[in-house]
This record gives sequence, C-alpha cells and structure tokens, in this order.
Amino acid sequence: MGNTAKGQLSVVSIGPGSLDLMAPMARKAIENADYVVGYKTYIELIEDLCSGKTLMGSAMTQEVERANQAVDLAEEGYKVALISSGDAGMYAMGSLALELLQERNWTRADGIGYELIPGITAANSCASLVGVPLGHDSCTISLSDLLTPWEVITKRIRAAAEADFAITFYNPQSKRRRSQIVEARDILLQHRPANTPVAIVQGAYRDNQKIVITDLEHFLDYDIGMLAAVTVGNSSSYLFEGMIVTPRGYTKKYDITDGSIYEGQKRGRTLNVEALSDQNRATDR
Amino acid sequence: MGNTAKGQLSVVSIGPGSLDLMAPMARKAIENADYVVGYKTYIELIEDLCSGKTLMGSAMTQEVERANQAVDLAEEGYKVALISSGDAGMYAMGSLALELLQERNWTRADGIGYELIPGITAANSCASLVGVPLGHDSCTISLSDLLTPWEVITKRIRAAAEADFAITFYNPQSKRRRSQIVEARDILLQHRPANTPVAIVQGAYRDNQKIVITDLEHFLDYDIGMLAAVTVGNSSSYLFEGMIVTPRGYTKKYDITDGSIYEGQKRGRTLNVEALSDQNRATDR
Repeated sequence: MGNTAKGQLSVVSIGPGSLDLMAPMARKAIENADYVVGYKTYIELIEDLCSGKTLMGSAMTQEVERANQAVDLAEEGYKVALISSGDAGMYAMGSLALELLQERNWTRADGIGYELIPGITAANSCASLVGVPLGHDSCTISLSDLLTPWEVITKRIRAAAEADFAITFYNPQSKRRRSQIVEARDILLQHRPANTPVAIVQGAYRDNQKIVITDLEHFLDYDIGMLAAVTVGNSSSYLFEGMIVTPRGYTKKYDITDGSIYEGQKRGRTLNVEALSDQNRATDR
Repeated sequence: MGNTAKGQLSVVSIGPGSLDLMAPMARKAIENADYVVGYKTYIELIEDLCSGKTLMGSAMTQEVERANQAVDLAEEGYKVALISSGDAGMYAMGSLALELLQERNWTRADGIGYELIPGITAANSCASLVGVPLGHDSCTISLSDLLTPWEVITKRIRAAAEADFAITFYNPQSKRRRSQIVEARDILLQHRPANTPVAIVQGAYRDNQKIVITDLEHFLDYDIGMLAAVTVGNSSSYLFEGMIVTPRGYTKKYDITDGSIYEGQKRGRTLNVEALSDQNRATDR
C-alpha cells in the first residue's frame, strides 16, 4: 500500500443507496480500496463496507475538490474508490475524473489505473418503485442550471415533450431553484394531457423513501426534494393499480392473452401500420 | 411450494450478464424462485444460480408466451422469477407483465405478489466501458420497428439530434432490419459534426465482449450486432485516450485543477452566461 505500487482510481457507482442494489463488482472495488472518497451522505450509506479504510467525505458543492483529492491519492500510489450515487457516468463524478486526468496529461500506458464501475441510475431505481414508466423510449434531463444555461435545458425539455419521450428529471429543484420545474411543467402541458402520469420518488430504497404518484396537473402540489427524481410518462402511459405503465406496444400486434398475432401482422417483421385497428391506431407508439 | 401459498411474480433485472454486475436483490429473487422464466440466452448467463429450479427458456420472439407462462405459474401459487437482461423496466418484460396482469383483472389486494427489481441498463453498462459518453442529458431510442411505427422513431431521433442529447440506440439492426441505423445516422449528421464520437458495444461484460470506438462518419463501416448498443456523444463530447468524454460543464465555472471559481461565477448559483470566456461559450452545455 502507498508510494511504491502504481495507484488505481476506481470511479464506483453505488446505485440508489441500499447495499442490496449495489453490484458485487462495486462492493469489491470499495473493499479493495485504501481510500474511499465521496459526498459525505453517500459515504454514510456504505459505511458498513469501509472498516479499516480512510474515508474522505465532503460537502455537496465540493465535487472538483473531491475529484482532485481522489486523483492525488491515486497518483501517490494508493487504491482509491471515488464513489457516486446512481451510475457514476450520469450527472456524476465520472466525467470530472476524466477531465482532470486529461489536465494532468494522464496516459493509459504510463498513468495510474482507471476504471468506472457502472450502477443502477436513479431513473431506473425510481421507475422500478412506481410500475414501468420507462417501458419505451425515454430520456433524462437535469433541471440544474448551475453548469448548463437554462435555454439549453428548455430546448431539451421541449424536444422531449414534442417527440413523446418518457422523461426523468434529475435535480428538479433546490432551495434556491424553484422556477425550473414549473417552467418544465408548462412546456410539457403544451404537448401532453394534464392527466399524464407523474411519479415523484425521493430516497429510493433508503430508509427515508417517499413515493407520490400523481399527474402533470397536480404534481407541483407535492413536496419535491433536491434529490428527488420526477418521472413523467409518455402519451401512452396510464395508471393501473397505483402503478404507471408505459407499454412497449405488444397489444398492437398480439392478442397478449395467448400470444396469437393479429391479421395483417407478422412475427419478427415491421409493424404493419395499415392493419392497425382504430383503437390501436390511437396509441401507435 | 406450489398450489397452497399465494404466488409471487418477480420481474428480475439481471444487468449486462456478468453475475458481478447483478444486484444482490436480484440474485436473492432468483435463488428464492421455484421457476425461472426467460429468453434462453439470458437463462444461460445465470445458470450457476439456478440449481434445483425449473428453468423455462424460450426463443427471442416468444415474449408474450413467456409472460403468460410466468403469470400462469405465479397464479398456481409458485414463486416465479421472470428475468430480463439490463433493466426489466426498459424495453423489456416489465410492461408486458403489467399489461397481462391488467388483462386478468389483477388487484394488488387480492392477486399474486408483484415486484420489479431494477438493474443496470445497457446504456449504462456499455457507457462504462468506453469512458463517460452519457455524462450529461441523454436518451435511449430503440430502432426496432416491430412494435413502433418508423415515423414515430424518426421523430424521436430528430428531436434528440436537434436538442443535443447524447443517445444510446437499442436494437440497432438485425438480419432483416438494416436501413434504420443508416437513416438514423443521416439525421444525426444534419445536426452534429462527422467526428462526433460513437461507440459500438456488444456483449458488455460477457465473454464475447467487443468494443469499437469510432465516429459518426465511420461507424457504419463496422459490424453491428442485433444485441449491440450504439452510443453517440453530444456536440461537446470528445475522445481522450481511447475514451469518450461528455463533460458536465465544470470547466465553464471552475478551474478544475484546484476548484477555484472563475470571476463572475458563484458556487451553488445559476451559471452566469454573460461571464463565460469565449472558449467556454463555444461549448456552453
């Protein structure tokens, strides 16, 4: 350990926060590390794995310092696990780590070891608790304008709304940012019915888990925390027994009660749009 | 086991295929099941967990039959794990299972148990092998027109291209479907430079893993399998040491070598677009 060997930077995804949803590969990387670096709230979630390690927790806005600290330690020869909640490659420490390595003229041949271990991103963990809202094409949009101009973000909201993507909003609001989610809703309502299903999930799979299932008209009546994910169905999504279902489209082609195929359709071939029944044509996505 | 107890349907995400990337919660659901139902290729990936269980593998296009089989067995009182690769809530068995329960007038109060265990979706597992291509807003689009009209799909490609989402294409092509990925590329080239980074990942974290990192101009020169994911960077993405980096935007606000903040910017506040340097303004997303 330490100065003699070549150091290793593992950017580790811890998933939603429950150890039960962290990949064994991530667990091993944490267990093998000399140092575990991360936002202090996330460090607390995995503390059970960290006996005998040096933990470096820091505050939410200290991402740049954290990444530098992790790379410094790896360059000193240590094995470092830089942890991110969800998937480290989405709105997380992964890109910052690579940008820093680039600033330091890192090369794969001569530099420290680098790996990124994937995890279950918030979009998927939150979705799993409220049905299947992301059953078809979907996107993630961060509503934080701390690093991205608001006009870039609204362009994306508009595009996603028009093209009927199911959407997961990350960073929906904070104490200082309250207008963005309101504007996002206004844009969505121009393209989707007011009863489009919406889920607000906070602390997925953690002790403080809180779930609201509502719709575009009403979701702003509920408390939306900074770490919540807000999931909006597409125009085919509907509610069933308190869950959101976004169909993939099997009912257009098959009698799903027995798997038989409708007249005019062929298994394994392009959907025949001409042969769709009127009912199916209304939801042809 | 069997007819006396209330049955349980667990829709289980197995992730990319390596047991090392399957969540412990998914593993437990499989180990606790009487029956494991799934596409036979996926069943083979988890065979090591299945001793003493009845395995029901079926062919790729038999999704409707598989879902019916799983629900039938659960209604007979068995514990059933219906497995999906990646995340079962994305282009997978989750929505079909819920649609079937609805057809059968299932209620949460009186019916079989139902749960969906999330997993690492292909977008994230494939991304982790090629850098951080999904570091900012991104979307997934399936290019399969077996259940979705092609005009709906092209509308989404166009919207994602215009609004500068990083994109992961699922089901990029098959033996019979070869034109879709070509058309998708044509649309993308209308909005992004020809040197936009593209990754083709097949068999992520499996024995047959194959990775190509190329760009929009050249990616069609390579073999793209049916189960490959094709990941396209946004207009800020670039190559670094054989990896794709899609920055989140820290370099617009911070000197990332030491975390100090640029003049005119404030930590924890909206990005001040007026204060961006010319270099940063060119990549202001």
